[in-house]
Amino acid sequence: MIDPAAPPTSDPIAELLTTYNELNSSSIDELTEIPSPLEFMRYVSRNRPFVVRGGASDWKATRTWSVDVLKERMAGMRVNVAITPKGTVPCALRRGGGGEGGSADRIRNADAPVKSEDGEMLLVKPWEEEQDFAQFMDFVIRQEGSGEMNGENITSSAVSTNPSAENDNLRNEYSELFTDVDPSIPFARIALQKAPEAINLWIGNSHSVTALHKDNYENIYVQIIGQKHFVLLPPLAYACVNEREMGPASYVRGEGKGELLVKREDGGRVPFALWDPDGLGGEGTRYSGLARPVRVSLGKGDMLYLPALWHDMEFGGSFYPFCGFARNVALGAVVD
Amino acid sequence: MIDPAAPPTSDPIAELLTTYNELNSSSIDELTEIPSPLEFMRYVSRNRPFVVRGGASDWKATRTWSVDVLKERMAGMRVNVAITPKGTVPCALRRGGGGEGGSADRIRNADAPVKSEDGEMLLVKPWEEEQDFAQFMDFVIRQEGSGEMNGENITSSAVSTNPSAENDNLRNEYSELFTDVDPSIPFARIALQKAPEAINLWIGNSHSVTALHKDNYENIYVQIIGQKHFVLLPPLAYACVNEREMGPASYVRGEGKGELLVKREDGGRVPFALWDPDGLGGEGTRYSGLARPVRVSLGKGDMLYLPALWHDMEFGGSFYPFCGFARNVALGAVVD
Repeated sequence: MIDPAAPPTSDPIAELLTTYNELNSSSIDELTEIPSPLEFMRYVSRNRPFVVRGGASDWKATRTWSVDVLKERMAGMRVNVAITPKGTVPCALRRGGGGEGGSADRIRNADAPVKSEDGEMLLVKPWEEEQDFAQFMDFVIRQEGSGEMNGENITSSAVSTNPSAENDNLRNEYSELFTDVDPSIPFARIALQKAPEAINLWIGNSHSVTALHKDNYENIYVQIIGQKHFVLLPPLAYACVNEREMGPASYVRGEGKGELLVKREDGGRVPFALWDPDGLGGEGTRYSGLARPVRVSLGKGDMLYLPALWHDMEFGGSFYPFCGFARNVALGAVVD
Repeated sequence: MIDPAAPPTSDPIAELLTTYNELNSSSIDELTEIPSPLEFMRYVSRNRPFVVRGGASDWKATRTWSVDVLKERMAGMRVNVAITPKGTVPCALRRGGGGEGGSADRIRNADAPVKSEDGEMLLVKPWEEEQDFAQFMDFVIRQEGSGEMNGENITSSAVSTNPSAENDNLRNEYSELFTDVDPSIPFARIALQKAPEAINLWIGNSHSVTALHKDNYENIYVQIIGQKHFVLLPPLAYACVNEREMGPASYVRGEGKGELLVKREDGGRVPFALWDPDGLGGEGTRYSGLARPVRVSLGKGDMLYLPALWHDMEFGGSFYPFCGFARNVALGAVVD
């Protein structure tokens, strides 16, 4: 137990982490029903995530979407996609938009850092371009099916250069599909007294990875198809994530259909968390070993509350990823 | 605004305090109606106090209590009182009981620190003894009326040596009066999913002061008669309060009806906040000037939510203190 009368410790950061671990579980609360606004507010108050198993299983999107349905509904439409070069680590994609007050904290589509020719560490945002939706879907499925990683990585993205609440792709470029999801999450809207600032649709495959990052806003994440795995760290694990300042940069497409090249951008340096809680690379700090990441996998219809300022890292399901699901549906197979 | 990309500052404590001041008002939210459990939970979530003007004005206690009524109801009963010697600073009285996990953090009835003969700073708890309730009330009124400060200071107290949820005087020694108050505060009970752990009645006069302290538990304070003035500091103002470790001690009554003497107790040193936000003595730190104390005065029927871990200092009303009220009622005057 905490003894407030104990003398100051020589390492308050270590003590903060240790005490938090003693007082909080590293497993996530699993609800089987949508919480009331008051029950939700208790989680907001404690700044703790939870998952509602099957919380969105009756959404029309959850009941009806498949690759074929999406292609049909989005026929002829062009969407914004985020592209990183072949051979890099899997594309690290962040949600864009939402939140209050745009800030340099919102690194989005952050790939692994790249060292520039003059030795500066750069954080390189993906190249964004419009593609035909069906062409994009075909790429996502082909890459998943072949395991091929020597093409470019492409992920659907709502991200523009200046993130703001207008990065809201399900109410904009994907508005055709918006009627299939609930327009708000009532328990959160009532508790927080705010309509959603942004509603985004993300499409990727098992190669899609989002680097460890944090957002300024409360987030409700709903899995429509496939699986996604989250690794979560509370805000106070800040000393574990090894945040470093990097130069801002973007990939830009060379002449015609040329290669993606790194271009240093103007503007101040941006912070990036180097540590990978899964130990798959990414240097930690002397405190990283004290972090107790909370891991949760979302399946079809599951709903995750991710509190503001938590650090999260996400990656596509390797067992039932989007396209595996699509293939199984096409073959008439039943997915778990 | 906060710029999360800003380089680390040389003084993170100063920046924490300054940023908090920018984001939060130093005035308290004033409600005119009891909040719903959800509205209450929003305050808990933001760890911010509020006051409900007249929130308890329909309680039987608020409507009917006076010195004469209390004396009649408590006739012949003996109660625990806390006594400090004459001539010291006004008795600093803390709420006892409630909360989870007894800890040395709960300095109760903390008088100003006293230096022992061998130079050790001691935090001296009051002497506690039983008195006839009417005798205690007579003392409180006589002291208020004469302004005499060269008697002993006596305050009613639920405090025992080992604080715990059983320090709950309104359901114990004052149980005769318990039917006159609401047995719980429904919005808090529903939101926090807990019945009150302790319900305490405090009686004092305008000389009653509670030194700056903090508690581990959520507190709803209801003013039944008179006024009380609070000076509140958020938990992150910790660096302002100049907490020091002191030796535990108690006043003990000498032989017979003898003088109160300081007795060093066994046990670990206990923390005590030296700073007085009102600048009436009590040394600060180099951060104290950055604190923005929240001040609120409670009148008859007002209700204050004091979030867990806030620092609070309380003192009796100097304009309409308990006995002023009692005198006015006796004289048939109307007290606003």
